[in-house]
Formats: sequence, C-alpha cells, structure tokens
Amino acid sequence: MPELRQNIITRDWVIISTERAKRPDQFAKSKREEQQRLPYDPACPFCAGNESLSTPDVLRYERDNTWTIRIVPNKFPALQPQGTTKRRMEGIYRTMDAFGFHEVIIEYQKHDSIFIDFTPDQITEILSAYRERYSVLQRNKNIESIIIFRNHGKSAGTSLLHPHSQIVAMPIVPFQIRARVDAAMGFFDDNGECVFCRTLRDELQAEDRLIEINDDFAAFIPYAALSPFHIWIFPRRHSASFNHISAKEIKSLAKILKRVLLRLHKGLNNPDYNFTIRSIPTHEYNSDYYHWYLAIIPRLSIAAGFELGSGMFISSAIPEDSARFLREVAID
Amino acid sequence: MPELRQNIITRDWVIISTERAKRPDQFAKSKREEQQRLPYDPACPFCAGNESLSTPDVLRYERDNTWTIRIVPNKFPALQPQGTTKRRMEGIYRTMDAFGFHEVIIEYQKHDSIFIDFTPDQITEILSAYRERYSVLQRNKNIESIIIFRNHGKSAGTSLLHPHSQIVAMPIVPFQIRARVDAAMGFFDDNGECVFCRTLRDELQAEDRLIEINDDFAAFIPYAALSPFHIWIFPRRHSASFNHISAKEIKSLAKILKRVLLRLHKGLNNPDYNFTIRSIPTHEYNSDYYHWYLAIIPRLSIAAGFELGSGMFISSAIPEDSARFLREVAID
Repeated sequence: MPELRQNIITRDWVIISTERAKRPDQFAKSKREEQQRLPYDPACPFCAGNESLSTPDVLRYERDNTWTIRIVPNKFPALQPQGTTKRRMEGIYRTMDAFGFHEVIIEYQKHDSIFIDFTPDQITEILSAYRERYSVLQRNKNIESIIIFRNHGKSAGTSLLHPHSQIVAMPIVPFQIRARVDAAMGFFDDNGECVFCRTLRDELQAEDRLIEINDDFAAFIPYAALSPFHIWIFPRRHSASFNHISAKEIKSLAKILKRVLLRLHKGLNNPDYNFTIRSIPTHEYNSDYYHWYLAIIPRLSIAAGFELGSGMFISSAIPEDSARFLREVAID
Repeated sequence: MPELRQNIITRDWVIISTERAKRPDQFAKSKREEQQRLPYDPACPFCAGNESLSTPDVLRYERDNTWTIRIVPNKFPALQPQGTTKRRMEGIYRTMDAFGFHEVIIEYQKHDSIFIDFTPDQITEILSAYRERYSVLQRNKNIESIIIFRNHGKSAGTSLLHPHSQIVAMPIVPFQIRARVDAAMGFFDDNGECVFCRTLRDELQAEDRLIEINDDFAAFIPYAALSPFHIWIFPRRHSASFNHISAKEIKSLAKILKRVLLRLHKGLNNPDYNFTIRSIPTHEYNSDYYHWYLAIIPRLSIAAGFELGSGMFISSAIPEDSARFLREVAID
C-alpha cells in the first residue's frame, strides 16, 4: 500500500509509491564508457600551473611550498561584491542589486580526482577551508545567508571536471529557508526542543534508516525523503551554524562524509549527486531551535509536472530499504 | 549588472544572472535525429484498439461512434481510492494512507501527435475533459487539492509517447501551496486586492513581458521567472479555481495555449516542458485573494546544488528578452 509521509522539519508531504517502487539496486547508474580523464588539462583554470586563468585567490592552503586548496571568486559570479542591499520597488516588483559573494573552492591540484579519492585528512582540509571562509563571509553585515554546495556529475549541474565546491553568500534569506526556520520555531515553542535534535534521537533509536554514525555525526535517510537515497548528516551536538563546528567535529564529518559517499559510489555505480550545507541565517543568534546539517541528494529521478505543480514529491524508493542497501555495501 | 528579483506571488527571490546571460536563441534545443514515430504502436496502452491494455475509463468523449478522449486511472497510481485520510503518528512521524486519485487523460487515438498538432477545437475538448473530471473529483470531501499537468519530453518526465496529461487529486494541501495561499491572503489584507489580479494589471500595462493576450487570458513571463522561459497564463477574470472556468473561457484558453506553445516549439526547437494548472485548495470557498493559473515550465536548465541548498534559483535568461524573442517568432 502506498503511503503519504510528512517530513516534520520541512513540513513537506511525500508520496512513497509502492506501486512504482524499485529495488534499491535498480537505481544504480548503468555502466558506460568512461570519459577519458587525465591528471592535468592545459585548458583547466583550476589545474596547477594555470593559476593565471582563474581569478586571484582569497584563501590559499599550502604544504611543501605548493598550494593544496585555493578559494577564488567565481569567474562568472551569480552575485558580486559591488552594489548595495537597498530594495527598490518598481510598482509591485521588488528588486535589488545582486550583491554578495560567489566563490569556488578548488580542491587539490590533480584534475581527475573525485571527492571519494581524497583521504580523510584531505577532506578535513577541504571542510576547514569551507569553515574558514564561511566565518569571514558571515561577519559581513549585509550577508544574511550562506550556502555551501558541491555538484558531482552532469545531471547535478557540474560543468568543470576539476574537483571543486562552491560557496554563495547572499544578502537575503531565501523564502524556503525562512519557512523552515519558522516551522522549527513553532516546534520549539510547542515542544521545548529543537526539531532536528528530536529527529536525530528518534532516528538513532529506530535504527532502520541509519547509514553511518560516529561520535559527532549521524547519517540517515529521512523518514519522508523527497527523492531516492536523499541523505541527511546531522551533527549530534546541537548547533545552529556550520560556523560553530569544532576542529574535532570537522575530522569526524570528513570521515562520515567519505564513508557515506563511498557507499553511494559503490552501491549505485558513481551516481551524480549534490551535497549542500545549510545553516541558520547568519545574523540569527538564537540557536535553540535550529540545527545545521549536510544534505546529500543523488540525482536519480526527474521532477516532472506533478512536482513542479504541487511542490510535492513522489518517490519510488522506500527509505528503510534504501538505508539497508547502503549499510550492506562493503567499503572496508 | 546582475539583479535580484522577488516574485511577489511566490515570495521567491531569483538571481537574474547577467554575467551568465545567454541570448534567447541559445536556449534552443540542438537539432537531433528524430526518433522514428508511427501513428500506431501495438504495445501502447493508449492507442485505439489497445483499450484492453489500460484500465477501464472513468470518462470518455466520443464522436462518430469512436472515442476522442478517455480518462483512465493510472495503471501505476501514486495515490489510490482505497484507504482513509486519517493521520497516524509514529513518534514524531506523521503518516497516512496514500488515498487519492491519479488519472490519465488520453488525448486522441493517434500515437505520434504532439500537443501543438491539435486544433484549437481539439484542445478545447481536452480542457473540457480536464474541467469535467476536476469538477467530479473536487466534490469528494476527502480531496483537498487537485493538480493537472502535462509532461512533454524526456527531461520533463515523460515515459509514454502517446499524447496524454495527468490529474492528481490529493487528500492534503501541499506545504508550498499552503504557503502561497497564506502569502496571497496577506497581500489581500494589506492591499484589498488579489495579488494575481494586481500582477496581471501591471503586466498588461508594462507590456514588455507579455507574450500573448486575448479577451479572457494573458500569457507572460513573470518579472522574477525562476527559470528560463517560465510562462504564466492567467485568466483575466478573477477566479480562484479552474473548476469555475466557463465554456467561452475554455475556448480562449485553448487558443492562447496553442499559440504560446507554438512560439516555444518554433523558437526553441521543440523544447521539453511541463505545464500545470494550479487552483485554490478544493474546499476553500473564499476566493477573493487567490487566482487559478496555468504555468508552462520549459526544461532548459538544471537545478544544481545552489538551488537544492537554498530553494532559490539562478536564471541565465532575462525575462524581458525572452518575452520579446517569443513575441517575434512567426506563427501565423
């Protein structure tokens, strides 16, 4: 019997469609010709030796006199540091300058690595760069929210092969984030508890949607996952902003992120995916009700007319089955 | 200079990215081998003669002793007429039976037509079937919202070639629709006017985003279109539900819909698209503040990590340029 499930955090309902359900392994990408990949591409602006092709870096990590990670402004930025945050009304239309920051985190010099090739120490360094830059950007009084994300594969929106992530610092709070903050506030008022902490406790107890846990993080498929193999990684310590992650937690996150992505890679044959880090809006100091987290969204299904028309989703994967499948992938 | 624009109806902000802007014709689909298409496919459950392959119809239009349009329950329904709408709590998780209706509108007997091949009279008949079925389903006291949609092309989620649309009647109001109804109510309270009527008036006056108008409808690209060539068709008469469309308006909608889709087809080389009809939740009788409409969403861009992480969009098309481009496509 198909089932409607409500995600208590986003308040979205999702149809878990048993009529169309697929076995977890049926989501695996079909084998295909591997595109030729080389460790250096003379035209790549992110490869070592081609630094002049990219914008100058705003942050650089080095080891043995050579860079490991560089953060540079996006050459085709969606938002720019010029302009103001003044809203202008043209009739009923509200507009403002596209003020903000849009930067690229270039991850190591080798052109043809993918994220799971990195060691936990390398991923720790990448996450440290995220945090360091997040911390600088969130001090800008005109920046209201910051999104960090990674696109892996063509259907996830990648255009450049060289490993990289992106950080966008915005002068507004997107409506979707505002709505979630509101919902989280409501839950806190009703229950005296953070809805994310509560979800985490329940998921740890239920166990059947868990994928990985360690001292500081838990990875699971949400009860009402909007799409197949949608994964949330929550910090176990209550904390509203990625800005507050500790050095020890960064190491733990690097480990769990690598393990989860490795399970996806092996279990589903290197699927395209996005991951994204969501935090409370930068200037909201009350952190009792909100909780930062990392979401991994494999791109295994297409949003069609129903999804675009309703904002709801139909998923052909059963969260408990998907989680069991990922737990059983051999990675050690 | 890139610009942030807010959609007053959805309250979404969108980044209109002049740095990445493409010329309108650059969104055209590249020419490709036409898949072989035949007017009859022996395996197609929607072709004439194969009626036994589909579920029995719940509505059938006939002419000259043969059917023109059939509405049948989806063979793999996301929602089913069995079950109840009782919410169950499992800990903090809310769930219910996937009660509802999921039906397919089969549009004429010819396997290889596409929507723009239909005459205005045929489209009128299709829209009449939508309305007739909408009217029956909305009388069910357990149905809270109804979405009608069409998927055209693979990236829009089509799996069956034979022309068809879908109607989904749901036992809940999706969170996104609830949020929009709330926003529309707020605008009405503040301004004493429907936000859709106001938008329509302003678009008719501004003219630069208009694509087509007739006595009963106006088609335009929203000021803050979330994706390239996103089009809204609004009824000019205030009306909250598609259920209240008149026979004359159905004819006018058929005409404008065909003209707009023809402009897209010719201008952008038959792009994949979805269209969807949104109405007020079925049992909300106060219709002063909400307005039904039809949205056309060409699938010309990919939602990547930024969109998934923020719920915001970056569009590489400038709405005024896209609208001018479509207006200049020769279709007469």
